[in-house]
Amino acid sequence: MGDKHLSSQFDLELSGISTRVLEMGGLVESQVELAVSALTSFDGDIASRVLVAEERVNQMEVEIDHDLSAIIALRQPTARDLRLLIAISKTIGNLERVGDEAARIARTVHRLINSGVFSRLRLPVSDISFEAELATASLRKALDAFARLDTVQALEVIKQDNQIDQEFDGLMRKLITYMMEDPRTISASIDLVFVAKAIERVGDHAKNLAEQIIYIVKGTDIRHNPMDTVESVALKD
Amino acid sequence: MGDKHLSSQFDLELSGISTRVLEMGGLVESQVELAVSALTSFDGDIASRVLVAEERVNQMEVEIDHDLSAIIALRQPTARDLRLLIAISKTIGNLERVGDEAARIARTVHRLINSGVFSRLRLPVSDISFEAELATASLRKALDAFARLDTVQALEVIKQDNQIDQEFDGLMRKLITYMMEDPRTISASIDLVFVAKAIERVGDHAKNLAEQIIYIVKGTDIRHNPMDTVESVALKD
Repeated sequence: MGDKHLSSQFDLELSGISTRVLEMGGLVESQVELAVSALTSFDGDIASRVLVAEERVNQMEVEIDHDLSAIIALRQPTARDLRLLIAISKTIGNLERVGDEAARIARTVHRLINSGVFSRLRLPVSDISFEAELATASLRKALDAFARLDTVQALEVIKQDNQIDQEFDGLMRKLITYMMEDPRTISASIDLVFVAKAIERVGDHAKNLAEQIIYIVKGTDIRHNPMDTVESVALKD
Repeated sequence: MGDKHLSSQFDLELSGISTRVLEMGGLVESQVELAVSALTSFDGDIASRVLVAEERVNQMEVEIDHDLSAIIALRQPTARDLRLLIAISKTIGNLERVGDEAARIARTVHRLINSGVFSRLRLPVSDISFEAELATASLRKALDAFARLDTVQALEVIKQDNQIDQEFDGLMRKLITYMMEDPRTISASIDLVFVAKAIERVGDHAKNLAEQIIYIVKGTDIRHNPMDTVESVALKD
């Protein structure tokens, strides 16, 4: 503060961190897409690529967190900057959990392939694709809102989460019907239940990301608030 | 630093925060226990109490996070203290997620009661009790380790997570058998699948808490590391 040199150094470090957060975000987004395509194409090699990427994501979380702590300790940031740094720390925690969900899906694909179930049954995997498209679109939008600190777009992400939840509920009903019609499919269907749940959680993480963006920009913690409060905070000047 | 007055004021604030984190931890622990007892005793009133407590937990998360940011901005803490404050922020995020899992279980109990399924079927709810005992014991131990900054105990929590995962896998096998024997139980059993999953996640959150404790005390981020590395960090002088 007052020291131009220190201040611009801080801005430089911050923009470096933001770039890496977006890189990490792009990586987990493609992990989810790959994991779902591994499922719909019964492709174990693609699933393996997701699991390799998980290690890179975990490593990025630890590295960015370490750099955040170093910046806070070194630069004694203002209250506003501090809010940003802590929110970024929570954001990368969220992104790491998205990577976890993708890895869960990939491990399920391996298990389904190993059990030979894909050759015996016609699993309703295409329905899961649609839920996954909604969730990855939300995630992409949240990352885009983070890049531009855009609270209007963040608000859209929060509102869309409901749609993903409804898609998940519909999938549950379908899977239950499927199991009841042919109880031999129960074991494999339970795996799909968890895949659908993992994708629903990706939507939750995108929503959490959006809440952090509103906190960064507006300084108000809107988690656990009713939608009209969230809306008025996100849209206020 | 150097300033006795400021420093002891900081210690006072820090100990106040720690007390509230433990209070929040006690609350979510009892939420999980209540939610499971609502399930095993088919008691909708108990489930409702869990949902009331969830609002209090959410509120505590927001309040403690707010105070943490204020302390960091005001006290310009040393690197070590900063590590502690950021780790506490992650810890309460973890505890809030435990509260979420308890609320998920409570909502499932309501749904099962409303569907009248408890009077039609003998659901295998007692098996879930045992998994829940393991998970709440881990959570309690993690909170105790937090209170005493005890890395040996934190290490035990991390090691025990495996046992909860195995219990969960066993439960899945039982539930699948149960559904295959009587396909009319599928819908209710899927609810129990999610309850078992929620409890398994409580174990994961206890493990995350334990990892934060090791980070606070030893300054090494051991997330995503193999067990022998975790062990040597937790036990080093």
